[in-house]
Amino acid sequence: MSGRVDARLAELAIELPEPPAPVAAYVPFVQTGNLVFISGQVSFLGADDSLAGKVGADLTPEQGQQAARNSALNMLAHLKSACGGDLDRVTRCVSLRIYVASAPDFTGQPAVGNGASDLVGEIFGDAGKHARAAVGVTALPLNCAVEVESVWEID
Amino acid sequence: MSGRVDARLAELAIELPEPPAPVAAYVPFVQTGNLVFISGQVSFLGADDSLAGKVGADLTPEQGQQAARNSALNMLAHLKSACGGDLDRVTRCVSLRIYVASAPDFTGQPAVGNGASDLVGEIFGDAGKHARAAVGVTALPLNCAVEVESVWEID
Amino acid sequence: MSGRVDARLAELAIELPEPPAPVAAYVPFVQTGNLVFISGQVSFLGADDSLAGKVGADLTPEQGQQAARNSALNMLAHLKSACGGDLDRVTRCVSLRIYVASAPDFTGQPAVGNGASDLVGEIFGDAGKHARAAVGVTALPLNCAVEVESVWEID
Repeated sequence: MSGRVDARLAELAIELPEPPAPVAAYVPFVQTGNLVFISGQVSFLGADDSLAGKVGADLTPEQGQQAARNSALNMLAHLKSACGGDLDRVTRCVSLRIYVASAPDFTGQPAVGNGASDLVGEIFGDAGKHARAAVGVTALPLNCAVEVESVWEID
Repeated sequence: MSGRVDARLAELAIELPEPPAPVAAYVPFVQTGNLVFISGQVSFLGADDSLAGKVGADLTPEQGQQAARNSALNMLAHLKSACGGDLDRVTRCVSLRIYVASAPDFTGQPAVGNGASDLVGEIFGDAGKHARAAVGVTALPLNCAVEVESVWEID
Repeated sequence: MSGRVDARLAELAIELPEPPAPVAAYVPFVQTGNLVFISGQVSFLGADDSLAGKVGADLTPEQGQQAARNSALNMLAHLKSACGGDLDRVTRCVSLRIYVASAPDFTGQPAVGNGASDLVGEIFGDAGKHARAAVGVTALPLNCAVEVESVWEID
């Protein structure tokens, strides 16, 4: 069935953003064999940079979770490009690496990361079950709250 | 020879813990081709969360090294599951990524990481020789001291 | 044409350093299939440890960029070993992960990372176009300013 994942996106009322341009000298994704490595995606959606700062200081964990979801949306926009527009070619989300700009005493990175993980699961079902690491870092590009790096298997 | 690695574990008096459940919406490992990506493993062993905090502040480097070893034990427990119980299927430890919750002036991440690297070397010999990165991060999930992410090649 | 990349290095007046020895119990790189995983490379060149400290506090962004370039030179030295001395075997730089030891309010990691990304682009052209993540971490081994981890595709 063609357009299976697009239909699921519509069902979830999720509209993917325009794939954001890299903020530096690299490309959004690289395919090697059937693996796609997607560059770290920040949590700003287009011109909306409201979710800036560190979780546990400037932002609540719930805002952090929203930021992680935003990063995942940017990631999915690039993934769609990597698949030539056809997300049905995704056979597995292999891994997500979730960097959370964190206050020194904030240790709730797993719940923040779920903003990205849950979205991937809702869209891809079993193929969305991924390995993951979530860590708290000092600061992220452009002062965004979350950055998500990922590896995908496509056919 | 079957059970080669299990015999080596017994020789080293190492008992693998129960594979810990992910603390969020993801799975412990994903296999793609002959590569296994294992989720970031924290350094608590079961109910024992004594090695909490940051190395260089709350914990000594030696305690950090012990925490890295604990993370590696949790990692190996999942690796065994990924191999259907047969660790002899491991052909190579490809890479370990070692995140050390660090005081701002603590720069001894390599020695801390050896708690994981040495364990892998002792168990797997040449197949345990891995690429590695060790970095100092602000905070880790559950306030654990070390998180270890890894990629393995199995047959 | 043999020695194509070596000729390009000469053209750019770039001399690769001696591949630095790992500072702990691991190896500089691991090949699995046609992928090479290179260990995190610090930004000291041989005995020169002048670019120490955190970007945004001890070092300027420009010094951070120089540090990233140094890490990339160390990375390329190991990559050359991984290729048995023949860098023409490189078919793609798959991904760079750039850790920048950062003051808590420093968010210019992308520009710092360009010190590595631009070098790879200058040397390899299209094959040097890579996926990337750049993050700000608390502290790095030996108090170096930048660490670069990478994955390469070779034939």
